[in-house]
Amino acid sequence: MRIIKFESDDGRVYSGCDFKDHTASVIEGDLFGKFADTGKRKSVKKIMAPVFPAAIFCIGLNYRLHAREIGFDLPKYPVVFMKNPAAVTGHMDDVLIPLSCAKIPEVDYEAELCVVIKKAAKNVPADRAAEYILGYTCANDISARRWQKHAGGNQWIKAKGFDTFCPLGPWIVTPDEIDNPNALDIECVLNGQTMQKSHTSDMIFSVGQIIEYLSDSVTLLPGTLILTGTPSGVGYTRNPPVFLQPGDVLETKIEKIGTLVNTLRLEE
Amino acid sequence: MRIIKFESDDGRVYSGCDFKDHTASVIEGDLFGKFADTGKRKSVKKIMAPVFPAAIFCIGLNYRLHAREIGFDLPKYPVVFMKNPAAVTGHMDDVLIPLSCAKIPEVDYEAELCVVIKKAAKNVPADRAAEYILGYTCANDISARRWQKHAGGNQWIKAKGFDTFCPLGPWIVTPDEIDNPNALDIECVLNGQTMQKSHTSDMIFSVGQIIEYLSDSVTLLPGTLILTGTPSGVGYTRNPPVFLQPGDVLETKIEKIGTLVNTLRLEE
Repeated sequence: MRIIKFESDDGRVYSGCDFKDHTASVIEGDLFGKFADTGKRKSVKKIMAPVFPAAIFCIGLNYRLHAREIGFDLPKYPVVFMKNPAAVTGHMDDVLIPLSCAKIPEVDYEAELCVVIKKAAKNVPADRAAEYILGYTCANDISARRWQKHAGGNQWIKAKGFDTFCPLGPWIVTPDEIDNPNALDIECVLNGQTMQKSHTSDMIFSVGQIIEYLSDSVTLLPGTLILTGTPSGVGYTRNPPVFLQPGDVLETKIEKIGTLVNTLRLEE
Repeated sequence: MRIIKFESDDGRVYSGCDFKDHTASVIEGDLFGKFADTGKRKSVKKIMAPVFPAAIFCIGLNYRLHAREIGFDLPKYPVVFMKNPAAVTGHMDDVLIPLSCAKIPEVDYEAELCVVIKKAAKNVPADRAAEYILGYTCANDISARRWQKHAGGNQWIKAKGFDTFCPLGPWIVTPDEIDNPNALDIECVLNGQTMQKSHTSDMIFSVGQIIEYLSDSVTLLPGTLILTGTPSGVGYTRNPPVFLQPGDVLETKIEKIGTLVNTLRLEE
């Protein structure tokens, strides 16, 4: 099932599935509890980010080639940081370049497979992680590289938490359509040019291992997002470096999920 | 006003004020919108954490003496990290020592003034920050020091995000009772012995400056918590070091707010 959240022409917001020809079948109930496809179709005026997160965890340096391109040894543990939940934005929404990043370009892309947690998960072993997953979507861990380098204490929160720095979507694909999240093509396309191209099998820590690690003595709440890391090819390691500019069109593509499209715009 | 969240003898959870003699006056409405004291009193069976957070931001190294004791230069920008919302626990609740921290003691205390955000705050200048504050409470930024040092990428999320690592309370005191949050005595008492004793005027960045910095191109959602940093005297910088043990009683005291009391217990 592909679960979308959408605004209909009646101005209301629904969850839905079977999205086609500008309509979707309405889902009733709680995505993190019991829900069902009603079969009643509504017009889809606008797709929204498929979930408002309880928390956003992100894994750094999780692709072997990317860890090497930025000069890090392979990490012993997953590198974990978080994003502010308000950083989420949807498919076809603009990603805003903060005013503090306008003069000297520094905003970068990081295409990532995103896992959506379905029910409270604590001390979950890797081989049981699938029971806690609502589904998968595309995300981009937008990052301000100067902030990442210079903000205090080497912490990444400020650099990666600006509003719209977590585009998400277009929809959540449930695990019955993705039997192995660790075997998907992943690609980031900027203005039609492929910038990142890899496969989730290059992840150092698999989806199950990440959930085991994050949930160790920690409750992952329903609606928690986990961004599982990005492949090599990010902008700031290129020669010359590539940073996102107003008007750029960013596509985050993952096999069996789809393509998340966002346009860059300067914050007003 | 002192706002508590409590379970009553009828098994239901209420917001309340004027807590005395094991009863409180019930507050109706939305703490982050319109609310009112009904004057109707209910028994208070158990005080709970006063708010379930939309997000938890924390400031590191924000007291001059503490920055020096751990060997850091005074930061140019606030050091920002986050905690998982599920880390919150209430007054008189146990703080759990994670199993991964049981063999070699490493769990430490950090008494902190906590700000609760009332309404969505973005690009808020320091001198208007007060408009966005619901109130203040006591918090303790419990930290696992080996995890803080060794978890990947020098990020602090894992070390500071275990369940119960954000005790909070006992209540939220509204700004009409605290005209200046940057002029409060703050103290941490462990088993009756004062371990930290300072004044929020020693903060490098004031509450207003922190909100200005955090809200720069970022939306702080209603219910966001901001832990504003801890004074000198934390356990791991002592000679010999002091780490929290099962059975320890931890008190976090802030002038004009009150005393948050928690007991340490080993996770089962």
